[in-house]
Amino acid sequence: MEKMNTTHIVIMAGGIGSRFWPMSTPEYPKQFVDVMGCGRTMIQMTVERFAPLCPLENMWVVTSEDYVGIIRSQIPEIPESNILAEPCARNTAPCIAYACWKIMAGCPEANIVVTPSDALVINVDEFRRIIRGALSFASEGERIVTLGIKPTRPETGYGYIAAGEQIAGSEICAVESFREKPDAETAQKYLDAGTYLWNAGIFIWNVDTIVGSLRRFAPELAAKMDTMAKAFYTADEKKVVGEVFPTCEKISIDYAVMEKADYIYTYPSDFGWSDVGTWGSLWTLLPHDENGNAVVGKNVHLYECKGCIVHAPNASSVVLEGIEDSIVVEREGRILICRMSEEQRIKEFQK
Amino acid sequence: MEKMNTTHIVIMAGGIGSRFWPMSTPEYPKQFVDVMGCGRTMIQMTVERFAPLCPLENMWVVTSEDYVGIIRSQIPEIPESNILAEPCARNTAPCIAYACWKIMAGCPEANIVVTPSDALVINVDEFRRIIRGALSFASEGERIVTLGIKPTRPETGYGYIAAGEQIAGSEICAVESFREKPDAETAQKYLDAGTYLWNAGIFIWNVDTIVGSLRRFAPELAAKMDTMAKAFYTADEKKVVGEVFPTCEKISIDYAVMEKADYIYTYPSDFGWSDVGTWGSLWTLLPHDENGNAVVGKNVHLYECKGCIVHAPNASSVVLEGIEDSIVVEREGRILICRMSEEQRIKEFQK
Repeated sequence: MEKMNTTHIVIMAGGIGSRFWPMSTPEYPKQFVDVMGCGRTMIQMTVERFAPLCPLENMWVVTSEDYVGIIRSQIPEIPESNILAEPCARNTAPCIAYACWKIMAGCPEANIVVTPSDALVINVDEFRRIIRGALSFASEGERIVTLGIKPTRPETGYGYIAAGEQIAGSEICAVESFREKPDAETAQKYLDAGTYLWNAGIFIWNVDTIVGSLRRFAPELAAKMDTMAKAFYTADEKKVVGEVFPTCEKISIDYAVMEKADYIYTYPSDFGWSDVGTWGSLWTLLPHDENGNAVVGKNVHLYECKGCIVHAPNASSVVLEGIEDSIVVEREGRILICRMSEEQRIKEFQK
Repeated sequence: MEKMNTTHIVIMAGGIGSRFWPMSTPEYPKQFVDVMGCGRTMIQMTVERFAPLCPLENMWVVTSEDYVGIIRSQIPEIPESNILAEPCARNTAPCIAYACWKIMAGCPEANIVVTPSDALVINVDEFRRIIRGALSFASEGERIVTLGIKPTRPETGYGYIAAGEQIAGSEICAVESFREKPDAETAQKYLDAGTYLWNAGIFIWNVDTIVGSLRRFAPELAAKMDTMAKAFYTADEKKVVGEVFPTCEKISIDYAVMEKADYIYTYPSDFGWSDVGTWGSLWTLLPHDENGNAVVGKNVHLYECKGCIVHAPNASSVVLEGIEDSIVVEREGRILICRMSEEQRIKEFQK
């Protein structure tokens, strides 16, 4: 018998993307939008990025019940039973625990990658090389690997990982500590030091490691998962998950496990990564015209515009004259125009 | 038998309104749009303005074949047979001649008002008083009356009428001459002189006067109308109009008649009139918020905006931040943003 592929991918797709209104709305958030104007949504690009690493039946999506229909239509190649619907949002630890317990039920030797659904990777081959290396390293014992992105600028919008000693014969390093989003001065120090990495929120572990870690550091959550697991693959599954999952404490995986375990490693990586977390970062990633405008949408016409980002892929026609350094967005009859410098206020603007 | 009402109204509704794209498009031009956000389109307001002056069967609309459906749905109270479809646009003289010959066929004693379909009148009672006075004056002989609007500013966007001697016992004056749109200096002189009036393009005459005038000054056009008239109210009407009307010379009523006849009069009027011909003039007419923004549309939200006009009555949501002195328009997925100072370029922007 052929060796079973033990690699499983868990795509977290429950976010509501409020910073990108109206491109992203609670009904249709960013991960389901063709943000880059490349013909693929963020989650479709995420699936494609991981597709060569495991069979499709090893690919899992954890999401809100509201988004199950969107996921089935955007990634029909993933088995419907691999879409895990959270009855309500409970932050990342319950989300990840649900997926890992479920995977364990079918594949006790699983090695797992947990990833956001809405980040961008430019060099996909290098990304896969890194993921394969991390999976190999994590499969060998109680090791949690996080990808650490080599910073290219003093970014204040990301959390950082302070890398420690390099593992002999490997590119992977121990983690000294995790750091919150820094102020500008601290971010510059991190960049100058050369040992700080951006936390991409991509985790690699084997199923024993994550389940054991949660039993140790979050025993209540683990007990609830054990209850749920008894119903997995039975007719009662939906009912039991619906009863138990909402009773889980809202807690992040960083707080529940990362800050407590002493077997955390980071893989310093350089494959062109962005969480595409702000309009400013999207502007940076897209090609620009000679006036520094970045446009997604075929029917957009600019006159005397400078430094704008325009996202209107479905508008019949958009004509802009004399707009500078602004965000211009259209989606389904909702329109936003906002100066780039004011983008942090977009959450408050949502109507 | 009751005295027959001899007043007929001819509403010219063939314009394509290219200065207001995308609020106004060739498929759905300005006269069919609720420009003011009052719940009524410009042509609906025009019909309401004239409705007390004559029975509905005396109200006529001349338009392009393309707009017949829109007119039937917007003003179903007008008999379908009173919608005269021009097979193609031939400027105002053939348009007016068609309507007047048609009216003559059914009502040889008609007194006729010809009016654009897309202008605004504020004081409707005063407007009706003036129209009634002009009809009475025009019914008495070979007299063409044009409404002359008392200017309130040195407008360069309108043609002017130089008023001459006042008719004894009447508010109506002889016309000395018509003047093209002036430059700013000339417009100021006109305003200071006090004897110049804006030409509103509203004409009042009896049917003998206009038919006789066209026989005299545009005999070819009149001959074509006689040919068409033989088919009026027969099964051949559409066919004959379709053959003959396109052969008419493209010529304006101003050039064909107004500049040649010596029995032209003007009724100096003051009822709050605008042709709503530019975004700037619409901005002037609409109410403003404390920052000088004029908004049509319930779902429009402004932050740090000044001096803008926003027309988006059907958008689900429009949020604008940091826009000044600009025109912002949405209609059916088409969006325009343009500085007010550049509005004359909107024709070139149409996509």
